[in-house]
Amino acid sequence: AMDGVPPAPSPAGLSVYVAVSQLLGLTVLAATGAWLGRYRGGVGWHSPLQFNAHPLCMVLGMVFLQGDALLVYRVFRHEAKRSTKALHALLHGLALLIALVGIIAVFESHRDKGIPHMYSLHSWCGMAAFVLYLLQWLLGCGFFLFPGTSFSLRARYKPQHVFFGIALFILSLTSCLLGITEMLLFKISDSYSHFVPEGVLANTLGVLLVAFGLLVAYVLTREEWRRPPLAEELALSMDFKTLTEGESPGGGS
Amino acid sequence: AMDGVPPAPSPAGLSVYVAVSQLLGLTVLAATGAWLGRYRGGVGWHSPLQFNAHPLCMVLGMVFLQGDALLVYRVFRHEAKRSTKALHALLHGLALLIALVGIIAVFESHRDKGIPHMYSLHSWCGMAAFVLYLLQWLLGCGFFLFPGTSFSLRARYKPQHVFFGIALFILSLTSCLLGITEMLLFKISDSYSHFVPEGVLANTLGVLLVAFGLLVAYVLTREEWRRPPLAEELALSMDFKTLTEGESPGGGS
Repeated sequence: AMDGVPPAPSPAGLSVYVAVSQLLGLTVLAATGAWLGRYRGGVGWHSPLQFNAHPLCMVLGMVFLQGDALLVYRVFRHEAKRSTKALHALLHGLALLIALVGIIAVFESHRDKGIPHMYSLHSWCGMAAFVLYLLQWLLGCGFFLFPGTSFSLRARYKPQHVFFGIALFILSLTSCLLGITEMLLFKISDSYSHFVPEGVLANTLGVLLVAFGLLVAYVLTREEWRRPPLAEELALSMDFKTLTEGESPGGGS
Repeated sequence: AMDGVPPAPSPAGLSVYVAVSQLLGLTVLAATGAWLGRYRGGVGWHSPLQFNAHPLCMVLGMVFLQGDALLVYRVFRHEAKRSTKALHALLHGLALLIALVGIIAVFESHRDKGIPHMYSLHSWCGMAAFVLYLLQWLLGCGFFLFPGTSFSLRARYKPQHVFFGIALFILSLTSCLLGITEMLLFKISDSYSHFVPEGVLANTLGVLLVAFGLLVAYVLTREEWRRPPLAEELALSMDFKTLTEGESPGGGS
């Protein structure tokens, strides 16, 4: 039925998966808002509610925006690589900024309440995720946006960038689940085991986070859904291959 | 320097990464044992120490053995596929059995202490990981060990099997981190924030678990380290391709 259509529209399955991932991402944000709004008094700044800005910012930055930044090469598969790359860097930058606000929220809140910093497994994993994510962003800008970096260096770094990009996204999700568990055991340790609505809602948020991560990772790793190189990119990379042929016989590390 | 050696020895980098992963895996087991032995009174059965069998079994089964089962196609890359497949299934089977013992331990311990079952995010994620892991194992046996399954069906299921295999390994690791956080907040909630040795040890165990997962995932996903098909497998798959050519034009999903 699709015969005669111009070559390579987005694969049909891909659009469905991306649409569902966005629905899930918005549901995750809504569930976070519902938890904080309905059971935790809402979100504030320079007030006892400042802590609540932490989960909200981390879910928005380190989960939703980070996940969507990973998806741009799949979604905008027929745009020029330049623009897609800029969007990828921009979304990650925005995610980092919002995450930074979330980190300031919890540090200031701990300071005001006299709670020590950085003692829990959640804080260790979460801080590692944030610092390495910032590092990954800086390296990404240096390798892929800075015009002076050679094609050969870019090609060698790319698999590492992709692997650590997905790994850091998963570590961010894991840190969120640890944070949910901590918060429940701090706030409702007495009633959590009786399946009170707040506990069930927060558990459900955790499951939704896992589902969002699973879906994004599936879209990213499915071989057939990788961004196909545009005609002009192919030509460029063949020029490059001819130029460098013999530079590293055996095809490198 | 390696010229003249018979073709395709294991890539040197691979052996180093696998060796480090095994060291890390054993360190994870030792750290779990040290935590339970030194700070939690050791491990028992039908005694107040029965609960402690839960973390020990889950780390041994759902992390160490599951991880090693995933690695067998990389480690035994020049063995016949039949034997490697059998070892893969066997190690996962053993992991499932040990995890089942660990699950019985926590259910009996909750029953004896009058604690409700399955209320926490840890229990939701952990039970999902276990049930889906069992399902994945059964599907794997049905598709890849049952001799009646056609090559074409196997080839179509394989990418799903690989994706969900890695995903379930990561979900298992995440569940362990959630369990560590729960246990610390149940047992040492008053002193955890003061960096007491038990808290630091358990946090370190969490970090080691993340490192083990990262290393295993890196080995599994590195393109150059995939198991190369043996000569006779190539011949077989070419026969198969000739036989089925034209069966699904376009090579669809």
